[in-house]
Amino acid sequence: MAPVVPHLEEACIAVVRGLAVDAVQRAKSGHPGLPLGAAAIAHALWTRHLRFDPSDPGWPDRDRFILSAGHGSMLLYALLFLTGYDLPLAELQNFRQWGSRTPGHPENHLTPGVEMATGPLGQGVATSVGMALAERFLRATRARPGYEDLFGHWTYVLCSDGDLMEGVAQEAASLAGHQRLGRLVWLYDDNRITIDGGTDLTFSDDTPRRFEALGWHVQSVDGLDPDAVDRAIAAAKAAGERPSLIACRTVIGYGSPNKAGSSKAHGAPLGPEETLLTKRALGLPEEPFFVPDDVRDFYRRVGERGTEAHRAWSERYDAYTQAYPSAAGDWKGALPTFAESVATRKASQAVIDAVAALFPTLVGGSADLAESVFTEIHGGGSMQAGSPEGRNIAFGVREHAMAAACNGITLHGGMRAFGGTFLIFSDYCRPALRLAALMQCPTIFLFSHDSIGLGEDGPTHQPIEQLMSLRAIPNFNLMRPADGNETAACWALALESAATPCAIVLTRQSVPAVSPADVVEHPARRGAYVLRGEGTPAVVLVATGSEVGLAIEGARLLADEGIAARVVSMPSWFLFERQSEAYRQSVLPPGTPTLAIEAGATLGWERWADAALGIDRFGASAPGEVLFEKFGFTPANVAARARDLLAGTSGAARE
Amino acid sequence: MAPVVPHLEEACIAVVRGLAVDAVQRAKSGHPGLPLGAAAIAHALWTRHLRFDPSDPGWPDRDRFILSAGHGSMLLYALLFLTGYDLPLAELQNFRQWGSRTPGHPENHLTPGVEMATGPLGQGVATSVGMALAERFLRATRARPGYEDLFGHWTYVLCSDGDLMEGVAQEAASLAGHQRLGRLVWLYDDNRITIDGGTDLTFSDDTPRRFEALGWHVQSVDGLDPDAVDRAIAAAKAAGERPSLIACRTVIGYGSPNKAGSSKAHGAPLGPEETLLTKRALGLPEEPFFVPDDVRDFYRRVGERGTEAHRAWSERYDAYTQAYPSAAGDWKGALPTFAESVATRKASQAVIDAVAALFPTLVGGSADLAESVFTEIHGGGSMQAGSPEGRNIAFGVREHAMAAACNGITLHGGMRAFGGTFLIFSDYCRPALRLAALMQCPTIFLFSHDSIGLGEDGPTHQPIEQLMSLRAIPNFNLMRPADGNETAACWALALESAATPCAIVLTRQSVPAVSPADVVEHPARRGAYVLRGEGTPAVVLVATGSEVGLAIEGARLLADEGIAARVVSMPSWFLFERQSEAYRQSVLPPGTPTLAIEAGATLGWERWADAALGIDRFGASAPGEVLFEKFGFTPANVAARARDLLAGTSGAARE
Repeated sequence: MAPVVPHLEEACIAVVRGLAVDAVQRAKSGHPGLPLGAAAIAHALWTRHLRFDPSDPGWPDRDRFILSAGHGSMLLYALLFLTGYDLPLAELQNFRQWGSRTPGHPENHLTPGVEMATGPLGQGVATSVGMALAERFLRATRARPGYEDLFGHWTYVLCSDGDLMEGVAQEAASLAGHQRLGRLVWLYDDNRITIDGGTDLTFSDDTPRRFEALGWHVQSVDGLDPDAVDRAIAAAKAAGERPSLIACRTVIGYGSPNKAGSSKAHGAPLGPEETLLTKRALGLPEEPFFVPDDVRDFYRRVGERGTEAHRAWSERYDAYTQAYPSAAGDWKGALPTFAESVATRKASQAVIDAVAALFPTLVGGSADLAESVFTEIHGGGSMQAGSPEGRNIAFGVREHAMAAACNGITLHGGMRAFGGTFLIFSDYCRPALRLAALMQCPTIFLFSHDSIGLGEDGPTHQPIEQLMSLRAIPNFNLMRPADGNETAACWALALESAATPCAIVLTRQSVPAVSPADVVEHPARRGAYVLRGEGTPAVVLVATGSEVGLAIEGARLLADEGIAARVVSMPSWFLFERQSEAYRQSVLPPGTPTLAIEAGATLGWERWADAALGIDRFGASAPGEVLFEKFGFTPANVAARARDLLAGTSGAARE
Repeated sequence: MAPVVPHLEEACIAVVRGLAVDAVQRAKSGHPGLPLGAAAIAHALWTRHLRFDPSDPGWPDRDRFILSAGHGSMLLYALLFLTGYDLPLAELQNFRQWGSRTPGHPENHLTPGVEMATGPLGQGVATSVGMALAERFLRATRARPGYEDLFGHWTYVLCSDGDLMEGVAQEAASLAGHQRLGRLVWLYDDNRITIDGGTDLTFSDDTPRRFEALGWHVQSVDGLDPDAVDRAIAAAKAAGERPSLIACRTVIGYGSPNKAGSSKAHGAPLGPEETLLTKRALGLPEEPFFVPDDVRDFYRRVGERGTEAHRAWSERYDAYTQAYPSAAGDWKGALPTFAESVATRKASQAVIDAVAALFPTLVGGSADLAESVFTEIHGGGSMQAGSPEGRNIAFGVREHAMAAACNGITLHGGMRAFGGTFLIFSDYCRPALRLAALMQCPTIFLFSHDSIGLGEDGPTHQPIEQLMSLRAIPNFNLMRPADGNETAACWALALESAATPCAIVLTRQSVPAVSPADVVEHPARRGAYVLRGEGTPAVVLVATGSEVGLAIEGARLLADEGIAARVVSMPSWFLFERQSEAYRQSVLPPGTPTLAIEAGATLGWERWADAALGIDRFGASAPGEVLFEKFGFTPANVAARARDLLAGTSGAARE
């Protein structure tokens, strides 16, 4: 589309720059460099390509826009304000202040039109791959004759040098190239400046060539020229089944006479004087937050055009849903139950198999461990460029991009995603796990091989601190089921979760069936519950996962000695903490000596127990049974530790 | 060098393969696929290029060899055994068993000749970059006329598809290309098979082209032909100032009639029958762990050649050290003290400036945050291809590779490395932090911007759970100093640490001077100590970092009310836990109500306190002072919480 009002558009871009500079200056904090440099890119995209409805940010078929370089948040806020989202000028004037909807870095749950939280570099680009996979899957599976046009939007990202230096971006780009995600476009703000100085200090990649090696369509354009960017986006859209990188050569802090092109423009206000000089150079008046009517009208019309497009889409979509009503199945009724010993990773597989047909928008995969974590949706096919309807995603040995892409699929809407790897490699995913929690994105993570029980692979593969360190993330529900039935119950909780990511932590080895078979109304739903010993106990044994069976055996030994031991299974601290105090005290009676048993770090167990049988060193390489024995995870030692506790010789939870 | 005994060498390679297959079969666990496929590569490297002395694995100028694909550990163990390291056959026969020195994945602190622990993919390749940087730095700074030959070895890596898919490998390769590390060679076991099947499932990179885009010298050879590999290594060494990737086309599980070339050969024993068939195909007898004398002699001679080379080197090195004695400075005496308020990140900078000249082998840098974390060694120059003697490393926005490379520099020996970023981005580094702890590698990490106190950048940048989750890693010393003097004391502890990585966690904002100026014998060295209130207190306030000053203010308010409050500063749980119980109880008297104050997750504080003032949600975007106020970090609230505790209305540490 050719520009309609070239002079007006120049003014538009200047106004966006001015708003960013003013907001940062007023906040006395923030990043003016990116909005100044990349305003023309964003303008070209938002006014000539991006399909969005400011009156309904949730339009399912909107194009997605991710500001991966989240520090440039004012660029996004300026466009949201100008095009008519529910983000008034007062919010821009309150940039980075307590209670505003314009935080330092974008947060999707706070601000309409923000697709995800960004700021930790690399996360935006990586998450975009999931959004593009979701778009393609829904198009492949939901479009029907005569309604093809209802499905099919684009995913755009604006990213920085920093994004592209992050390893997760490489993982994601490699995956996107393999998947031939033709509707994914990364606009790269190639300003050759990082915080510490020129990129030549440390970054000598031939980035276009690198992306070509990953199967991408690559262009290099003048990022200060909106028409050039416009043409490049059009070419990217015409490039067929290849994701596109558009390297947009820009100048950081463009317009600032004394700071443009240097790292000084990156992360601090320009200062009052330089702000005025910059505005003068941009042809803007001194007035802060200046928006002339013609600029406002221009952007509003862009927004209204989107609202009209959405209205037309909705009419046809209503007809589509009448013609093809969705057949939501009762997946809960299909949950399997378990009467026998089973490795919980295999129980998890049984759940996937049971619910998959009734939950047709559930997709997932693993980081090259499908046959170890047991993540296969049998009969679901492989999601590939030639089979976008496939439900199994081979993420490759790319744990971090997997987690981010699963977030993207889930954030996209209309789908749910799970991603699996060994619990130890949750460390590789950690920034994306935390971001899911912050974004209130209910991604499901399957982490198997959850303790020294995995055996011979040794300490590099044996989680110790992972359970507790994942529990420490706010709004993150780590669940460690004790047996097959708890595994099914945890899966149900994960599938129901609306605003909290869940990790289901699974054993490699077999564990006995110990918990009730009513997996829909399972007591594990309350986070912790009395599994054995309802009366008044002398001692409580609280355990998780594979150690619950051990606690039961220990309790039996104690019973033989006349000591009444209660066994509490506690798959989820997160859920237990949300129960009433009365319930919590009914499970863990105050004043009753309590021993925690978990094959992981003891740090934190003081919250619930007086002593803990755990592991505060690295593991070792030997068969799992040998390790459990050597590390003291035996019924006899459980009973001994309980006796010590009752005798008052072990008052501290620490080993 | 041309092969001397071609037929014998074929036998050698077959014997290595046989040992690996037998050990895995005997352990009933392990990975035969890589040793079978890559034995010829390793043979060519170890017998024709690698310089090593089996009788002294610590020879400083040895070539480094890293098996990044650590799951192929039996390949390495076989070569260590055969060339004469202190790793007898009995250890191979005890592969993956309790107490053996042949764990499932290599561990440097267990097994002579193992340079680092590998297994988590990508770590080996990334760490190798640090080793190569260290080699070049020492060569540039220590070689003297007539002794140039004493400094200069090579760093070799054997890596897999999985290694190269990991993001950290891209970060490291990009850094190595920028740094033009000509003495770094990655041998890529290009077998086109991953656990889930062919790499075509998910991996479509043109890997050679990608590495060329990163500035590498790239070759592709037949990895089953030792002569071809030999020639490629020779060409890599002649390629000048470019790191080298040698893509060695191999067949996973080579020799196994029914499993070669498939993922079945990757991670499980071949089985008794297939083991025999494989040995037959390789020309080996059925006898397990078969090593004919001529093969043993051949490898032993290789080892002895290295011992002789080492002996010659040592003689000349003795002469060198007599001619150029090292001038170790008394850096402890130079530690600065602080009488005024200072941001601890700035105090850390002052320490670096003070000790740098006296500790000339200390190098470091940041992940593009040198001016925020304050990591500059002033006057140290930038470490670049043209200035390898520079002491400041611009790691770029590559936190994970930074952490791994710092591990590599430290593991290399003769140097110490520190790496800095924001505490929130410790999440990006986490696999390398854990590996440092497992490897007993005393890398120093500087993590600044350590709480909501960083202010407007908001929750994506504000650590909450990071303090506690890093404390949970075994053998990892997280230190959060309260003021400038504690910062200097923590730096001293970090520099002295021999087998434990240390993270020094630093504030963005200014904190008052509260602790003694004797930084060499500072009480912080015991992990925690009584800072105010030596008598018998009514209540104890235990705090870390920026909250220590707040605790003092709270104690003053309590004193005004006649309540004797003790203030304990606890910079390091790790060190405090290693004190005697008597000392610990003298600091935190049992039975005295204790309130913990830390601007992070409360989980875990139950270990030391009866209640905790912390943060169990994500932060927010606003000025730091506002956030401290809104989150209850005020003297008045500290006093109120202490009163609640004394009144018994807050028995739980959880908010």
